[in-house]
Amino acid sequence: VEFAQAKAISVAKDVKQLGKDDPRRVYHAMKVGVAITLVSLFYYFRPLYDGFGSSTIWAVMTVVVVFEFTVGGALYKCINRGCATFLGGALGVGVQHLTTLCGDTGRPIVLALFIFGFAAWATFLRFFPYLKARFDYGFTIFILTFTMVSVTGYRADEILSYAQTRLVTIVLGVALVMMISIFVYPVWAGEDLHSLIANNIAKLANYLEGFEGEYFQVPAEGCAEAHKADKPFLLAYKSVLNSKSSEESLATFARWEPFHGRFRLKHPWKLYLDVGVQARQVAYLIDALNGHLTQANVPLEFQSLIQEPCKKICSESSKALKALSCSIKDTTIDPLKKKKKERKMRLCFCS
Amino acid sequence: VEFAQAKAISVAKDVKQLGKDDPRRVYHAMKVGVAITLVSLFYYFRPLYDGFGSSTIWAVMTVVVVFEFTVGGALYKCINRGCATFLGGALGVGVQHLTTLCGDTGRPIVLALFIFGFAAWATFLRFFPYLKARFDYGFTIFILTFTMVSVTGYRADEILSYAQTRLVTIVLGVALVMMISIFVYPVWAGEDLHSLIANNIAKLANYLEGFEGEYFQVPAEGCAEAHKADKPFLLAYKSVLNSKSSEESLATFARWEPFHGRFRLKHPWKLYLDVGVQARQVAYLIDALNGHLTQANVPLEFQSLIQEPCKKICSESSKALKALSCSIKDTTIDPLKKKKKERKMRLCFCS
Repeated sequence: VEFAQAKAISVAKDVKQLGKDDPRRVYHAMKVGVAITLVSLFYYFRPLYDGFGSSTIWAVMTVVVVFEFTVGGALYKCINRGCATFLGGALGVGVQHLTTLCGDTGRPIVLALFIFGFAAWATFLRFFPYLKARFDYGFTIFILTFTMVSVTGYRADEILSYAQTRLVTIVLGVALVMMISIFVYPVWAGEDLHSLIANNIAKLANYLEGFEGEYFQVPAEGCAEAHKADKPFLLAYKSVLNSKSSEESLATFARWEPFHGRFRLKHPWKLYLDVGVQARQVAYLIDALNGHLTQANVPLEFQSLIQEPCKKICSESSKALKALSCSIKDTTIDPLKKKKKERKMRLCFCS
Repeated sequence: VEFAQAKAISVAKDVKQLGKDDPRRVYHAMKVGVAITLVSLFYYFRPLYDGFGSSTIWAVMTVVVVFEFTVGGALYKCINRGCATFLGGALGVGVQHLTTLCGDTGRPIVLALFIFGFAAWATFLRFFPYLKARFDYGFTIFILTFTMVSVTGYRADEILSYAQTRLVTIVLGVALVMMISIFVYPVWAGEDLHSLIANNIAKLANYLEGFEGEYFQVPAEGCAEAHKADKPFLLAYKSVLNSKSSEESLATFARWEPFHGRFRLKHPWKLYLDVGVQARQVAYLIDALNGHLTQANVPLEFQSLIQEPCKKICSESSKALKALSCSIKDTTIDPLKKKKKERKMRLCFCS
């Protein structure tokens, strides 16, 4: 019993910490709860339910599946789902009408051939990186709606009204999700990307600022590890090494976001990725530099020889990176910017 | 017209290239097409259709949504979907019975509270990295089924048979997808991870093998860029820098895969990730090393001073890495393994 109690307390603590780390997670969970509850109201009020009948379920489904953490993510899924449902439904109805010309025996065969063809092609096209980044979800929904409409049409006669109801209920769900995710505590992927890039560069600057002091100190035996824990800037840069995938997914989502805050509709999100690549390049160099910290047996005369220039390079590079980070944060242009790369090159060579 | 023709030809070429690069993509598209066509047969044969009626649509939906490229990915979604449907359905039926005790006015309110509570909690728990990696899809399906069963129960009386039909049709779809993805041209995530790691290390080895020749050659003016294009090994290592996310998703999927080929059920996939981290560490050093290739003005006497030891370190490190790559490929243990890291350290220091 005691063990279970301790376990429960630790889990509760973890949950609390998860919410504390980023309170937007709690808001997001609330928003999803509210959206699903709202859409399920369709079932409780008879006038609403009578309009759509059991198709109301598509609205519920849409809300559950489409609601993503960031506004961009939600819009990506919303727009994909809406358009793909329309396209798939229209094509399904068209194919259905076409197959009625084939007679009773031929009909299921032609229908099956169409389904196979569309499903296989759409699945294959998803492998294109360009299409995958933008319309992956749309392809799934396209196959789904096309198959559903065309096979349902084989059994039920009112295929047009079926396709129509599906489209309307899905658009309803999509509209609800869009409104809630944009107007209630929005989490903008663009804003996140912006500060991620700026913070990454600031982390690199902090490392360089602290490096000189770390490298040229007289090493006290035994407490090297304790040291590292005291100085988070020595480890912070490591997250820059692996930020590629989060940067890319944020940039993909940011593209779908409307005008908000400082960001216009066609904000050049792609340039953030370029800056991210450069920052990672610097982080690789810093990682190589970091290897020197743990090396013993560096002759003292060599150390004292390089101390002066090394100090200068570190502090200047760090200043340049800091200025760069600030200018990204405030979206201003800074004359120091161009000096950055040049300095990095020298730094790399010196070490 | 000519422009459109040229465009069409270029797109056709891209499509062909996409299939050629990895023919498994074509097989995958075919497999999905076959699976969807098979499951839509339920609609064409009256005896099959009479069993499930319009719920047959869940089987179609399951196949479309669940069929992933790798066996592990498909199994992850299949198992998550099956279990979450069962759990969500059972809870939905339970809550439905509970709310019948609340009287006609209280019932929708209590029901809405339950839906809000479950949806918000499940959404929040998805932020736990551990749960996200293993059960993200399951959480979505859980919310979906729970909401669907409990709201449908408010309007229809045969809620138990509704939940049951949904479960059976989904299990049917899941079983079909599992069989096809395991037995017809399977794409094992584990196998892909295995060869990805081994190839990455081989790429690093190739770079080091070629580096010495590149660095100490007499630079011919103007053709430096042309050179790079001729020598793919100088660029191949760059893909190692960014392989983290694909390694991690492959390892996540590999965990779901049954016994196949050389791999047992509990193959230590986590260790591959550790090796991947080490390989990336080496790649960072190599990237720093690569910066030296483009630097001019290195004094010739310095070059000739380091040529001999540098040559030795490069060739030895390269040999060690190659041996390591082969031993991973064949899953054998090699005595050279341990020497690798030590050599890397020296290499870093020398440059």
